[in-house]
Amino acid sequence: MAWRRGKLTAILLIFEVVFIVLFGILVVYDDQANATATQNSLTPAQGGADADNNVLRAYYPMFQDVHVMMFIGFGFLMTFLKKYGFGSVGFNFLVAAFVLQWATLMSGFLHLHHGKIVVDITTLLTSDFAAAAVLISMGAVLGKVSHIQLIIMAFVEIIFFSINEWVGLTFFKAVDVGGSMFVHAFGAYFGLAVARVLYREDMVGHSKEGSNYHSDIFAMIGTVFLWLFWPSFNAALAPGDDQHRAVINTYFSLAACAVVTFAISSAVEKDGKVNMVHVQNATLAGGVAIGTSADMMVHPWGALLIGSIAAVLSVVGYSYITPFMADKLKIHDTCGVNNLHGMPGVLAGIIGAIVAAVASPAQYGNSVYQIFPARAPIENSTELATIQAAFPAIEAGNGRSAGLQAGFQMAALIVSVLVALVTGALTGLLLRLPIWDQPEKDSMYEDEDYWEIPEEEAVDMNGSLEGVGHKKPDSRARTESDTNNEQDTKV
Amino acid sequence: MAWRRGKLTAILLIFEVVFIVLFGILVVYDDQANATATQNSLTPAQGGADADNNVLRAYYPMFQDVHVMMFIGFGFLMTFLKKYGFGSVGFNFLVAAFVLQWATLMSGFLHLHHGKIVVDITTLLTSDFAAAAVLISMGAVLGKVSHIQLIIMAFVEIIFFSINEWVGLTFFKAVDVGGSMFVHAFGAYFGLAVARVLYREDMVGHSKEGSNYHSDIFAMIGTVFLWLFWPSFNAALAPGDDQHRAVINTYFSLAACAVVTFAISSAVEKDGKVNMVHVQNATLAGGVAIGTSADMMVHPWGALLIGSIAAVLSVVGYSYITPFMADKLKIHDTCGVNNLHGMPGVLAGIIGAIVAAVASPAQYGNSVYQIFPARAPIENSTELATIQAAFPAIEAGNGRSAGLQAGFQMAALIVSVLVALVTGALTGLLLRLPIWDQPEKDSMYEDEDYWEIPEEEAVDMNGSLEGVGHKKPDSRARTESDTNNEQDTKV
Amino acid sequence: MAWRRGKLTAILLIFEVVFIVLFGILVVYDDQANATATQNSLTPAQGGADADNNVLRAYYPMFQDVHVMMFIGFGFLMTFLKKYGFGSVGFNFLVAAFVLQWATLMSGFLHLHHGKIVVDITTLLTSDFAAAAVLISMGAVLGKVSHIQLIIMAFVEIIFFSINEWVGLTFFKAVDVGGSMFVHAFGAYFGLAVARVLYREDMVGHSKEGSNYHSDIFAMIGTVFLWLFWPSFNAALAPGDDQHRAVINTYFSLAACAVVTFAISSAVEKDGKVNMVHVQNATLAGGVAIGTSADMMVHPWGALLIGSIAAVLSVVGYSYITPFMADKLKIHDTCGVNNLHGMPGVLAGIIGAIVAAVASPAQYGNSVYQIFPARAPIENSTELATIQAAFPAIEAGNGRSAGLQAGFQMAALIVSVLVALVTGALTGLLLRLPIWDQPEKDSMYEDEDYWEIPEEEAVDMNGSLEGVGHKKPDSRARTESDTNNEQDTKV
Repeated sequence: MAWRRGKLTAILLIFEVVFIVLFGILVVYDDQANATATQNSLTPAQGGADADNNVLRAYYPMFQDVHVMMFIGFGFLMTFLKKYGFGSVGFNFLVAAFVLQWATLMSGFLHLHHGKIVVDITTLLTSDFAAAAVLISMGAVLGKVSHIQLIIMAFVEIIFFSINEWVGLTFFKAVDVGGSMFVHAFGAYFGLAVARVLYREDMVGHSKEGSNYHSDIFAMIGTVFLWLFWPSFNAALAPGDDQHRAVINTYFSLAACAVVTFAISSAVEKDGKVNMVHVQNATLAGGVAIGTSADMMVHPWGALLIGSIAAVLSVVGYSYITPFMADKLKIHDTCGVNNLHGMPGVLAGIIGAIVAAVASPAQYGNSVYQIFPARAPIENSTELATIQAAFPAIEAGNGRSAGLQAGFQMAALIVSVLVALVTGALTGLLLRLPIWDQPEKDSMYEDEDYWEIPEEEAVDMNGSLEGVGHKKPDSRARTESDTNNEQDTKV
Repeated sequence: MAWRRGKLTAILLIFEVVFIVLFGILVVYDDQANATATQNSLTPAQGGADADNNVLRAYYPMFQDVHVMMFIGFGFLMTFLKKYGFGSVGFNFLVAAFVLQWATLMSGFLHLHHGKIVVDITTLLTSDFAAAAVLISMGAVLGKVSHIQLIIMAFVEIIFFSINEWVGLTFFKAVDVGGSMFVHAFGAYFGLAVARVLYREDMVGHSKEGSNYHSDIFAMIGTVFLWLFWPSFNAALAPGDDQHRAVINTYFSLAACAVVTFAISSAVEKDGKVNMVHVQNATLAGGVAIGTSADMMVHPWGALLIGSIAAVLSVVGYSYITPFMADKLKIHDTCGVNNLHGMPGVLAGIIGAIVAAVASPAQYGNSVYQIFPARAPIENSTELATIQAAFPAIEAGNGRSAGLQAGFQMAALIVSVLVALVTGALTGLLLRLPIWDQPEKDSMYEDEDYWEIPEEEAVDMNGSLEGVGHKKPDSRARTESDTNNEQDTKV
Repeated sequence: MAWRRGKLTAILLIFEVVFIVLFGILVVYDDQANATATQNSLTPAQGGADADNNVLRAYYPMFQDVHVMMFIGFGFLMTFLKKYGFGSVGFNFLVAAFVLQWATLMSGFLHLHHGKIVVDITTLLTSDFAAAAVLISMGAVLGKVSHIQLIIMAFVEIIFFSINEWVGLTFFKAVDVGGSMFVHAFGAYFGLAVARVLYREDMVGHSKEGSNYHSDIFAMIGTVFLWLFWPSFNAALAPGDDQHRAVINTYFSLAACAVVTFAISSAVEKDGKVNMVHVQNATLAGGVAIGTSADMMVHPWGALLIGSIAAVLSVVGYSYITPFMADKLKIHDTCGVNNLHGMPGVLAGIIGAIVAAVASPAQYGNSVYQIFPARAPIENSTELATIQAAFPAIEAGNGRSAGLQAGFQMAALIVSVLVALVTGALTGLLLRLPIWDQPEKDSMYEDEDYWEIPEEEAVDMNGSLEGVGHKKPDSRARTESDTNNEQDTKV
């Protein structure tokens, strides 16, 4: 495989050089992080910034939670594959680090200020959110594509992800505080479309596609950190009481989701046992399902209900829909992202639309115009003046009714799913080019071809099995003596 | 075991439906999280809330630390059992998620505002604290009870936990900033009483009750996160300088505790080796032992001393008291919670009483009335007026002397331990009902009966051993071919 | 090995008693954490402290991130050694907990206030930073020294570390916000000097010095948490916009570093595979390399470039320089700290000097005097008065030019490396005293001699291999029957 040597290196270095050049031309610090800004050389009394209240402080704890979700959460969640642990946590790391830079640029292109991309802590946070979309897509194709394909997919996906989100937020003025439509549903259906196009029969029922006892425990590190920090994911960008509410709603949705996951898992499994796949994944569906409505007035009971429904949907998905999709629709979904991000993301969008349809100023006060900016009265109207007298932070909107806002929420959901499917399919076609080195059957779900594997492993994992003739060795011989062993013991 | 299928599902779903109904009737957002509250539709200048200073921001970082402690900390700490890793981290997850909801209700019943349970970030935090009590109790019975028994135990324990804490705080006006008496000692002695009642001889010296190399490293994930975030646990609910002091005291107590744990472990073990059990557990005893007095003026040297004593107590407990209790008192304590939470919790209560006995306004200033509210002068007294002139946050108290406060501290400690023992024993009797499916000897300390175990495991963990005839296979056959393999290779 | 029993215990207890005594004599709470301080008994309106703005809140989230880096980050990063997992995470825990106390004292001796060591949250943070230096040195000698040697090394190193940092900050007035010179380079070269003096041929090419599949995944827990929280490490002590900038710079430097690490790893490895050693370590070099200049105006593109260069340097170091040093220079560096902390630390210092050389008031405004205090005009000068009129926080400095500051930066770097090498070598000589029980060849890179190892391991890890005669058992017999097994199966 000497071919790969140059290829991965070249692709990554070319991208990195382009990133550095584009950053050099375009990216500047926000005034809150820029020593040159006059405000940072004056006291507050003189109109300077208050160093003790730099915007960094408001966002940093939740930013770090989200950061942990991306790299520990997604990275370890995927280590459940027994022979693909390096690839799971390692390629997750590579892809996410790549996206942090590329998403800063792509999102920046769409939000230029005087021709520059201005970065502050919220930029870092939204780049992490963008990484989530790609990592979700990666879950659909995990173990079935090369690292090069992952990088190409990440590059292309971020383009469409950024545009779709920008259209949804700017033109539809749909709201989605936790990114359930724009991140989770988009990432899932993009990845599933890629998986559909890349489908080969030998991907399904593969002997190496499975977990072992310790790989399942490693995966729980990812699960639990995702579950714990999901309130930060859903609340990080909301202000004041909206943020507080988003934390409460997500916390309760996830608590109910975890309990109901165990209930339903035990109901659908043989002998009433609990399935680790469900615990690793379906417990998180409550975080997705409440994402769009997390800052809305769903009330704590509503959060519990949403989390409970998400758990049922997700467990049923893992047990019945994933096998159906693999068998009948030729969509093989390694991590079951349809069940954790896809269907719960769609559910989130629908719930968001329903809650938007019943949101009234009577219940929300002026917050209704903060949560749904398009519902604020139009510019220069007397209604707007009245509202701004009490709450100057409200900006002019489109004067939408609750029902109209709900319609735009549904439109944004549908468009997100469709754009994801179409652009994902196109990306899948691109990824089928032989140049990207898609792995053959023997190299799937396995680190062997991509990673230097510790030598001892060849003995630890297979040596004893060889000795008793259970199956042929998985690991390739690394030394002459290993090779001899293999030959000696093959049955 | 088809019986279990319906049972776990039914129990969890019934509870969840009840939770949703009760939440619907009773639980409302605090004004700080409620869009309907007028304050959130006005600027601060008009009497509105300052969105940048929502109470969420003050508590959230420490809340998340505590959240990590409950689910990663306790969950992974218990994965030391080599065949019960799924149950440890998985049932910890289930039980804690269950308690977050139930404790919100139970605590809310005792603190109704106009007939409603008002939730904000501090509610989430105190529900996490309540989860700690149950997870500690779970440590005493780990591997010996069914998941159904754990849920029933959690349900009953939270009732008594909440009432005991409420009595201690409201009537005794005892203080316990880190919950060492009300959470740690209560949880430990409740669990030990349950363990005593459930005791069977076959629970002791069980071949599966032990760790292996990697399960011990997984457990260290739990240990280290508990150790790191314990300052947040002890300080999260304290204000201003009290909180700052609680962080410093807990940090130093834990640092000394870790060092002394290694010293004493090496002293009591054969050949001067260090015992992982001690490192995983006794290193944390310093966090418990300083819990009650964490916000008091124990001084940094006092914190080091308290942590050091806790380490000695805890290591000695693991080496001598746990075996004694199992042999002589028929109390088998799987995780040694008596050594980590029980005795250090009692120590914490005693230290708290001693420090309370010497706390004077000369040393504490007006903080003495903030830390010990019952020591504030009684309503309408001139003493109170003088204090409130300087520090309006002080509310009327009971005019207690330092000695009287110390007496109430001791009373709260004794009552907590007694209530825990009695209600734990009663709960144990309840859990002995056959309906809850307590596992038989062969199913103890093992995931087999409760979890779908990855198929390969049957080969990885036992296959090769079968081949050389060491012991009979632990994993049940999952497929026909597996069954054949087993038969083929049995010697 | 009964000798060790008393020894470790005695050494640790003696140190702990001394710590308690010295804390009792010297250490007091800062006013922000001291109930006795009048400010905590008054309202802000009366000149009291604002409890909602206690300094704790500003530092706590980043402090906890750094705390996680020390104990989870370094602890798990070192678990890559397949047979030294307990020692890696366990001795890391012991050493760090020891240093938290000792560094508080040593740093305190150099910064006495009225004869007292005053502790607040920043003390805890700087003690954690000091721990980093020792843990880095530990990486160079990992598996080759006894726990007693580690404690002695930590004790001695902290003395020189504290003095070197104090000289660099106080006399050279060099700046190093992320501690790349004073922590990373110092720790690395101190440890390498120790390793050189302790060098024995049997340390190199040792059969137990290596990873296995799961130990490499455990190590990734450490890597990823270090990578995620490094922005906190570099920014924790910076104010306002400087802190914000340090977060942004470190985030981008690390993102580029991760991508380029994969690129270069694949270029230098056989068959274009990626090497886990590089991913575990070189991905972090970007955090070190930007440490000194993290709060300076390196711009986002500069951060990407610095991270990219650090990745190349670090991967090349692992592939070529580490083997060279072991073979030719007799410096065996277990964790490759030269590549992660040493060379990137030197690079950081050089970058810091270069950026300092071009830092002008035109670009930085008054921040230039905040970031480089020695550049502030001298006391009583009119220049100073002008600056202070706008920005009173600026204190009188030395009126240094940019070039002079750059020179002092270089001087501090060179002195740090030299002091580390000389004091490390002296410490190595001290550690060669037989009294500290340096392990023999058979005991290196292995937990066996230092830890109680779970009994089952003898079967799980080797039993099956014994059965098929691949190699002789690694684990020592623990019971009579184990011993018999060994004898039966030895080939």
